[in-house]
Amino acid sequence: MTRTVISSATKEVVIGFDEPFVIIGERINPTGRKLLAAEMKAGDYSRVEQDTLAQVQAGAHMLDVNAGIPMADEPRILAECIKLVQSLTDAPLSIDSSIVEALQAGLEVYQGKALVNSVTGEDEVLERVLPLVAKHGAAVVAISNDETGISEDPDERFKIARKIVERAADFGIARADIVVDPLVMPAGAMDSAGTSALHLIRRLREELEVNTTCGASNISFGLPNRHGLNAAFLSMAIGAGLTSAIMNPLHSEESTAIRGADVVMGHDPNCMRWISAFRAPAPEGGSAGGGRRRSRRRRR
Amino acid sequence: MTRTVISSATKEVVIGFDEPFVIIGERINPTGRKLLAAEMKAGDYSRVEQDTLAQVQAGAHMLDVNAGIPMADEPRILAECIKLVQSLTDAPLSIDSSIVEALQAGLEVYQGKALVNSVTGEDEVLERVLPLVAKHGAAVVAISNDETGISEDPDERFKIARKIVERAADFGIARADIVVDPLVMPAGAMDSAGTSALHLIRRLREELEVNTTCGASNISFGLPNRHGLNAAFLSMAIGAGLTSAIMNPLHSEESTAIRGADVVMGHDPNCMRWISAFRAPAPEGGSAGGGRRRSRRRRR
Repeated sequence: MTRTVISSATKEVVIGFDEPFVIIGERINPTGRKLLAAEMKAGDYSRVEQDTLAQVQAGAHMLDVNAGIPMADEPRILAECIKLVQSLTDAPLSIDSSIVEALQAGLEVYQGKALVNSVTGEDEVLERVLPLVAKHGAAVVAISNDETGISEDPDERFKIARKIVERAADFGIARADIVVDPLVMPAGAMDSAGTSALHLIRRLREELEVNTTCGASNISFGLPNRHGLNAAFLSMAIGAGLTSAIMNPLHSEESTAIRGADVVMGHDPNCMRWISAFRAPAPEGGSAGGGRRRSRRRRR
Repeated sequence: MTRTVISSATKEVVIGFDEPFVIIGERINPTGRKLLAAEMKAGDYSRVEQDTLAQVQAGAHMLDVNAGIPMADEPRILAECIKLVQSLTDAPLSIDSSIVEALQAGLEVYQGKALVNSVTGEDEVLERVLPLVAKHGAAVVAISNDETGISEDPDERFKIARKIVERAADFGIARADIVVDPLVMPAGAMDSAGTSALHLIRRLREELEVNTTCGASNISFGLPNRHGLNAAFLSMAIGAGLTSAIMNPLHSEESTAIRGADVVMGHDPNCMRWISAFRAPAPEGGSAGGGRRRSRRRRR
């Protein structure tokens, strides 16, 4: 029963096989958000503040912080954002950058045990990121691609994940501190995107025994009703073993699907969280088919 | 790749591992519907007509027809309803009764290959229902309980399902013509209800290689936001291998979850059905996290 513990100075979050699903809020990320990028570059972090509070309010258990702005001093901006976010919430953070110096700057100011997002299976990346993760006693997101790109074959992606786990062990990083991202592809581009992801999530859980995370909304890229498809995918991925996701926590479709999946997985004892989330203002009546249950056992 | 073919006089529906999920509309059932029961008993089938048209319009692929009214002539009423429903739609039917004489009356008027709902693992029931199924060349829903009731242990329920499949073979009924109901329990009464159901669905698919159906709304019995929980459960059950459900097709939460699960399972080639269901009036934009996908592959 693998448990990945991430913490801030005062709060622990556990990603685990027997734990409620962990939502990592993805909003503090200037990629594709021009206004936020311009503000962050100019040192205006008011929107980072708003995104912090709104995501925690909406139920995010952790927050991802990314400061990837072209032509900006990313290490400094990322460190400043992490300090700011940690002053506003006790939710543990995922420090997200493709620049090793930025990960380092973030880790140096971070209070607690961070989740480093991310390392790939590329040898050069492994050799630069893993020592940093080990030095700071952090956990790390392992992305299952390497120098050859992203394989369409989920079993090839599994091999890369296993390689990362093995290499991390050489640096003294425990398997429980590696959270593998199976890389979800858009269903609109590839009919096998969903089944590949579910297959790989199941193998990662059952054979490699690691926790998993993903950018769940990739599944719906380019399609209408993205939230509806994300919701179905998230429930199914949780059923297959997914234990966390980097996602937008502000949408009720996805949140309801995750709460429901926690009930179905037996991770919401006596449905207490489901009931407290939905009993107000008025519970729904018996219109959803309860009659069927009463009728089925009779046999004359 | 088990395929269960059900038909009306002019239309076939296939329940199968590689097929889109089959929705069997549950509304034509007087259990818990006092007004409908009174009308049906009095020979007024106007609400049966409405339920037929509304469910087909809402996307039901098949309809379940039940006439279980205490102190009424169920065989006659069931046969009349089946004739009426078949005059209104070409959707194949599930003939639903706990009275063998009613199943017989229904089968005698049915045009096509019906789904008989249901047989249990009780010896007396097996010996009365299976010959009827064999005689009419029908398919049958097998409910995984027996004389001892419903076991809480899904592996005991699996054994009963296997017994029904074996006994059916003695009557010349093919495994592909048996659709097993794993018996979904309410999560509000038992924390393991969801995991038991998923475990059993997976075993039924992988080991017994049979199609499955269930009263999905049982999962949410007694809880608020039933449609939200049903939707999460349905997606997860489809991910585990469920191939049909007896359910209310009129609610968008469940329908969207099923459409989404079909996409994720690769049963909606090029997402054509998803796109045609949701592209109008206006597709949603890039607010669901597409930016994340663009950002993740960059590594400097």
